[in-house]
Amino acid sequence: MNSIRFPEGKTLDFVAVGRLCIDLNANEINRPMEDTVTFTKYVGGSPANICIGMARLGLKIGFVGKVADDQMGRFIVRYLEREGIGTDNVVTDRTGAVTGLAFTEIKSPTDCSILMYRDNAADLLLTAAEVREEVVAGAKLLLISGTALAKSPSREAVFQSLEYARRHGAVIAFDLDYRPYTWASEEETAAYYNLAAEKCDIVIGTREEFDMMERFEANTGHDDRVTAAKWFDYRAQIVIIKHGKDGSIAYAKDGSSHRAKSFKANVVKTFGAGDSYAAGFLYGLMQQWPIARSMEYGSAAAAIVVSSHSCSDAMPTKEQVDEFIRMSNAASPN
Amino acid sequence: MNSIRFPEGKTLDFVAVGRLCIDLNANEINRPMEDTVTFTKYVGGSPANICIGMARLGLKIGFVGKVADDQMGRFIVRYLEREGIGTDNVVTDRTGAVTGLAFTEIKSPTDCSILMYRDNAADLLLTAAEVREEVVAGAKLLLISGTALAKSPSREAVFQSLEYARRHGAVIAFDLDYRPYTWASEEETAAYYNLAAEKCDIVIGTREEFDMMERFEANTGHDDRVTAAKWFDYRAQIVIIKHGKDGSIAYAKDGSSHRAKSFKANVVKTFGAGDSYAAGFLYGLMQQWPIARSMEYGSAAAAIVVSSHSCSDAMPTKEQVDEFIRMSNAASPN
Amino acid sequence: MNSIRFPEGKTLDFVAVGRLCIDLNANEINRPMEDTVTFTKYVGGSPANICIGMARLGLKIGFVGKVADDQMGRFIVRYLEREGIGTDNVVTDRTGAVTGLAFTEIKSPTDCSILMYRDNAADLLLTAAEVREEVVAGAKLLLISGTALAKSPSREAVFQSLEYARRHGAVIAFDLDYRPYTWASEEETAAYYNLAAEKCDIVIGTREEFDMMERFEANTGHDDRVTAAKWFDYRAQIVIIKHGKDGSIAYAKDGSSHRAKSFKANVVKTFGAGDSYAAGFLYGLMQQWPIARSMEYGSAAAAIVVSSHSCSDAMPTKEQVDEFIRMSNAASPN
Amino acid sequence: MNSIRFPEGKTLDFVAVGRLCIDLNANEINRPMEDTVTFTKYVGGSPANICIGMARLGLKIGFVGKVADDQMGRFIVRYLEREGIGTDNVVTDRTGAVTGLAFTEIKSPTDCSILMYRDNAADLLLTAAEVREEVVAGAKLLLISGTALAKSPSREAVFQSLEYARRHGAVIAFDLDYRPYTWASEEETAAYYNLAAEKCDIVIGTREEFDMMERFEANTGHDDRVTAAKWFDYRAQIVIIKHGKDGSIAYAKDGSSHRAKSFKANVVKTFGAGDSYAAGFLYGLMQQWPIARSMEYGSAAAAIVVSSHSCSDAMPTKEQVDEFIRMSNAASPN
Repeated sequence: MNSIRFPEGKTLDFVAVGRLCIDLNANEINRPMEDTVTFTKYVGGSPANICIGMARLGLKIGFVGKVADDQMGRFIVRYLEREGIGTDNVVTDRTGAVTGLAFTEIKSPTDCSILMYRDNAADLLLTAAEVREEVVAGAKLLLISGTALAKSPSREAVFQSLEYARRHGAVIAFDLDYRPYTWASEEETAAYYNLAAEKCDIVIGTREEFDMMERFEANTGHDDRVTAAKWFDYRAQIVIIKHGKDGSIAYAKDGSSHRAKSFKANVVKTFGAGDSYAAGFLYGLMQQWPIARSMEYGSAAAAIVVSSHSCSDAMPTKEQVDEFIRMSNAASPN
Repeated sequence: MNSIRFPEGKTLDFVAVGRLCIDLNANEINRPMEDTVTFTKYVGGSPANICIGMARLGLKIGFVGKVADDQMGRFIVRYLEREGIGTDNVVTDRTGAVTGLAFTEIKSPTDCSILMYRDNAADLLLTAAEVREEVVAGAKLLLISGTALAKSPSREAVFQSLEYARRHGAVIAFDLDYRPYTWASEEETAAYYNLAAEKCDIVIGTREEFDMMERFEANTGHDDRVTAAKWFDYRAQIVIIKHGKDGSIAYAKDGSSHRAKSFKANVVKTFGAGDSYAAGFLYGLMQQWPIARSMEYGSAAAAIVVSSHSCSDAMPTKEQVDEFIRMSNAASPN
Repeated sequence: MNSIRFPEGKTLDFVAVGRLCIDLNANEINRPMEDTVTFTKYVGGSPANICIGMARLGLKIGFVGKVADDQMGRFIVRYLEREGIGTDNVVTDRTGAVTGLAFTEIKSPTDCSILMYRDNAADLLLTAAEVREEVVAGAKLLLISGTALAKSPSREAVFQSLEYARRHGAVIAFDLDYRPYTWASEEETAAYYNLAAEKCDIVIGTREEFDMMERFEANTGHDDRVTAAKWFDYRAQIVIIKHGKDGSIAYAKDGSSHRAKSFKANVVKTFGAGDSYAAGFLYGLMQQWPIARSMEYGSAAAAIVVSSHSCSDAMPTKEQVDEFIRMSNAASPN
Repeated sequence: MNSIRFPEGKTLDFVAVGRLCIDLNANEINRPMEDTVTFTKYVGGSPANICIGMARLGLKIGFVGKVADDQMGRFIVRYLEREGIGTDNVVTDRTGAVTGLAFTEIKSPTDCSILMYRDNAADLLLTAAEVREEVVAGAKLLLISGTALAKSPSREAVFQSLEYARRHGAVIAFDLDYRPYTWASEEETAAYYNLAAEKCDIVIGTREEFDMMERFEANTGHDDRVTAAKWFDYRAQIVIIKHGKDGSIAYAKDGSSHRAKSFKANVVKTFGAGDSYAAGFLYGLMQQWPIARSMEYGSAAAAIVVSSHSCSDAMPTKEQVDEFIRMSNAASPN
């Protein structure tokens, strides 16, 4: 049991709004990108990855987004459709925008970086008028992702989605997913992250992301509890603050706090850990599991993804997560 | 008595954030601007006008804004200082921006128009970091003006001001003051007007301005009562909807509604009517007068301004407004 | 006699391409603009002033340019038409651009400055396709002005005009008229000024303007003769280098050089001196007068304009210039 | 023998200025890009390919360009250096620009297309001041490429290079290489292509590229001879007009014209044909071969490249071209 009440009588479990892009993962790993020669193409973007993850876990999913009118855009839509994700509200740009790209570089399992192409990206051109109220109205849970706030008109599309979710009673989750590219300044980022977070039931981010949001505030000790408490004054019910390899902590409005169990993994790269964690965690909440169990489920999904070469393509099924947890617990009973 | 409780122990009555610009009023009136030859220079911009109006009525005022590093910018700062308005938080741009201009054309008392110069205007370059918390913290009443939401970084500066006002208990008034120039689209306008209005105690605008804010809503009958009710679900206590020469109506959160008495005036032009009305009305509220009396006071100030050639320069003193009301009531006792 | 051969059988004497804008001259002179209150509106822009000057001297003139779709733009077109200048190729912008403004400040006769409004100026939106070949083809003399090179698409319109002039045998004059506003960098300016000057028969500019064009060259001594010689390797026949109050010097391709006689004037301000000089000088050349006499005629026109409050409006007629020269020579026979 | 006289006493044979980018060639060929999964990374960009081609043929080469400060940029510089191409004047961007990308799609040997990423590309940020005069001064032959004219400041850098080449007596070749991306309009393209072509000794382009340059001219019959004749009025000595699979024709200033022999090839894709042709042709001219033999050498190089998967990497050595010609002539003696 957890305190989040998802609305009844909806046609979809989950709708995400935001970035749809392409990951180009270097096939040759454990070396700098200067020395890699071939790349494999995957669907990417944090909200896309989370949707794919939740679809693999068996939920009914829809996407609100925009793709380029090119081969990359069509590849993305086909992939989502093959995963059973509704693309009715995935709009095609007609202005000549391109698909955002992320070239990944894996120097070592712990030294990974991304080379982003975000100029004139189609996903940032989604307009408020293109968000279809009935799509958001049909969802139990709406996920917004911080990168979609980086520019107009996508920024307004996110706020319009939030308004529709409020109007129709959807639970709202905010995955901060802050990427400095495309933002004009940290001040600008802080402004819109705060305006959006005020309207959300669940806020998930790293300590650094919350610090960025607090740049005009007095939380100089970077105290997680202070960070979480601010949002309980608005609409939040759960705030999760991630501390990288030190794990994450969830605060609930009832005053409780929860730490996630972490799993041993044979790490190939760190990309995708956050997205698979979010997918597993939100899945758990929607099963009405307690927060701690939901976090554990997210951690297990993350452990599976970081052991693989891709993000989206590696998202596990329910059976895979359950089996992983069973095996892990058998190996190290505590 | 009205329902607004202004905080105690503040050093300023009123702080406005937003546009500071120059009006160039044609000296030759009742003809198109193609046939006018000389112009007189005045300080302009809706929040500047309201501040000047309230300063003339005897209140302690401060301004948060940005001016160009040129002769026009220095003229504005000197004028405000001569009126006793605090300019500690009027920042000077260093990027080569210009001062916004408004050339006024008075074809007839009822056919007036404005030719705006708003490209690269200094006032829209105010940043969130340039808003000084202690200035907003020191005010009983903060006024924000819609034009300052038209572009980044001024838009973020407004939201930062709202956050400081909330933090320090200031009453917040929002003068919608919608000008299509500089906005990318009406959708964008609607998004930020709604986000700002949610955080305000008093919202003042024309029917057309509220229609623009409701473009994604179902108020197809343009019903003032529906419009006002929406904001009472957020923080609003008073919503005023102006209907041009048909007068204005104020709704209060307690369910009451109030119509303003209007005064006969020897109209030269319509410019400045809204700003002088706002100055008089807010002044009244701060005296703890009832809403209706405050509205009447605003109407009297407006009647004085529309009888004159300028906006800012014609703002009346308390003695002038009182005398005007006395004379008007003597002339037409009702 | 001079070496320039103007083509026969043309319908117009002179066509200029470039800036059309508004001057707003402070009525209160000998003080900073912070202390001026009223302004008088005139047509402005260097090529516009030169056209008006040459029309007053009795030549047949056409203009190639673009104006804003507003009261200022209509004022400009009407003014040109009243002066008898052909406006068939003055296009009206339909994108919402504004009319460029120049507020003049006269602190003293020798301390004058200009506050420019050039953002989103209509004149810089003239396209190559809007330049009508038959208008340029009909002229004996084409004048281009450096400010029109400052931005695309106006920059391409200038080069297209140069191509039409070359194709139809018009003499081409280039008034450098360099204004730093709107140029991205001095390097960019140098690039296009040089490309344009290569195609011109007459080049007129200040020493500082030629220095800017030579930033990638070795003329470290700022030697006028070196400057002029460069252009004789291209198409130039006359190069005039102006040295402010030290007068100007003209170099001709035949190796001769000429200094202008200067006239005593009761100087009100320095604005407009260059434009009236150019008008008088080009007028003289078109009468087949020797270079020195043409320069003297330009100097006389300039002396008249600097004694007056405006630029365009003060351009003298032939009778006025002749009378001025007669009176000046009578006063100081040399 | 041909009519081009290359200067003596230079340290480099050839310097190119312009685009350096990355090709990402789909490994899975003969299918749409929606169905390709892996890509191989190569150095790309027309002038880069030509330089690599000429370096393989044994010439001394330098490059004037700009790369992004990222893994892609460093990969490009290293590749050039391994090929023996001088990178002293390859500047590294410090503004966060990216490396231009070209994803190639090979649906069939005759149906190939390219998906370009050109927003915020580093190569277009080369400035005139970054072009080192001594590098251009040291070359017998300068090549400019049309894509570098697409935007400021790269456009000005090209004109500055042309000026240095003129000053120091280098022969100048212009590979039109028109790509619609990044140009604001065809009018803008025509303007700068014409200004550049006026200054070149050798102009190489397709019929469609010359048509674009003639949009303000009367060559309605698209007559190659008319096209070529125009440039002989300026500085051109050779003009080559390419007609795709119908071959190409070269016109020389002496009135002669020459058609290239074409070779049978086992075509994998058409990319790179033009670049390898240009490399072989210019190589031939520099050997003082007759135009026809130089064209044949270019055709042979092109036949080798279109039979391979890449462009830059497949550029043949002198031995490979000689052998290819020998084998082809043996197979089909004519």
